[in-house]
Amino acid sequence: MFLFHIFHFIYFCIVNYPSKIVEETVQQLSKLPGVGKKTALRLTLFLLRQPEDVVKPIAESILLLKSQAKVCKKCCNIADEEICYICANPKREQQVICVVKDIQDVLAIENTHFYTGLYHVLGGVIDPMAGIGPDKLNIVQLMQRITEEPIIEVIFALNATIEGDTTIHYLAKQIQAMRENIKISTISRGIPVGGELEFIDETTLGRSLQHRISL
Amino acid sequence: MFLFHIFHFIYFCIVNYPSKIVEETVQQLSKLPGVGKKTALRLTLFLLRQPEDVVKPIAESILLLKSQAKVCKKCCNIADEEICYICANPKREQQVICVVKDIQDVLAIENTHFYTGLYHVLGGVIDPMAGIGPDKLNIVQLMQRITEEPIIEVIFALNATIEGDTTIHYLAKQIQAMRENIKISTISRGIPVGGELEFIDETTLGRSLQHRISL
Repeated sequence: MFLFHIFHFIYFCIVNYPSKIVEETVQQLSKLPGVGKKTALRLTLFLLRQPEDVVKPIAESILLLKSQAKVCKKCCNIADEEICYICANPKREQQVICVVKDIQDVLAIENTHFYTGLYHVLGGVIDPMAGIGPDKLNIVQLMQRITEEPIIEVIFALNATIEGDTTIHYLAKQIQAMRENIKISTISRGIPVGGELEFIDETTLGRSLQHRISL
Repeated sequence: MFLFHIFHFIYFCIVNYPSKIVEETVQQLSKLPGVGKKTALRLTLFLLRQPEDVVKPIAESILLLKSQAKVCKKCCNIADEEICYICANPKREQQVICVVKDIQDVLAIENTHFYTGLYHVLGGVIDPMAGIGPDKLNIVQLMQRITEEPIIEVIFALNATIEGDTTIHYLAKQIQAMRENIKISTISRGIPVGGELEFIDETTLGRSLQHRISL
């Protein structure tokens, strides 16, 4: 039975794709995150069945993506121009910076429609286990903004993980060492809206008691 | 609360993407099966982080796919040449045709290494509910092969669904009407290898009794 499994594995590895370009496309698509060989084959066969005017724009948008998308010189967000549309908007509060990990987080916060300040995209969090030190993040740009611009508050909106907390601690210390009169805050951690106490883990419940809001 | 959900839905629909090309790529990638807006955004941001020499081959393989991949003139499988590598292989048994629904099924059967005959890819099964009649499948080509080539057996390897069974019934009748001395069979349905009787549905168990194999 064990030998059978080994043979089966080897057989699976040397799948005879019906055509070289199908094999090539499967190989390329399986580089995408969350896409294995089977999904890549499904996507390839889907693309084969589609008319030219559906398939071509997909490939072209991927090609354009790398050449056209820029990184905002101020906040390191993705932009069409040198400066992204948030930094370029004069109606936004220019004295508040919200520090986030990734572009997705900017979108998530923008979708709440509760925030009117600026952002700074770190591009990750400090994670020594994964070999990500402060030098790999957009920290120099953040410090430059804090010294040059009239910032009065820095809000950290990072994931509630050990890595997120480490990054907040590290950056908060650096910012305080540089400018004393700056307000530093982090988004509140507590029970999600709609959450029931019964099903919340103890750490979250403990923290939500510790950081209780006075009415 | 209901109004809140409606607003939330509208907000979600008018996500402000940080750049036009990001929005375009998200829109294009979400055309792929099983890829929603969120996954498309994740893929887009992944592609943005990758170097040019990773992203370019992905797009190029998609572009080449439509222009280079051909349909085998004999069996309707995908091929690099006019005739696919299975039909072109003289070592394969030329008198047996295995009728399958899709290219994936050819790959699945090839991986078993139990079959040495030829294939015929129908491109679907008869499914009146989805508007797929016999005219939309590669049936004409199959009938032509059966009349012109010295076929002695047609094996149906279609899904064990109502649509699959309907297609088998329809085609078997047509083939028998055309040539009487041809053997028509279908892959056996029964308990999968490793399956336990306790957990098998009644229909499968019933069928596996009905089509019991004499030792």
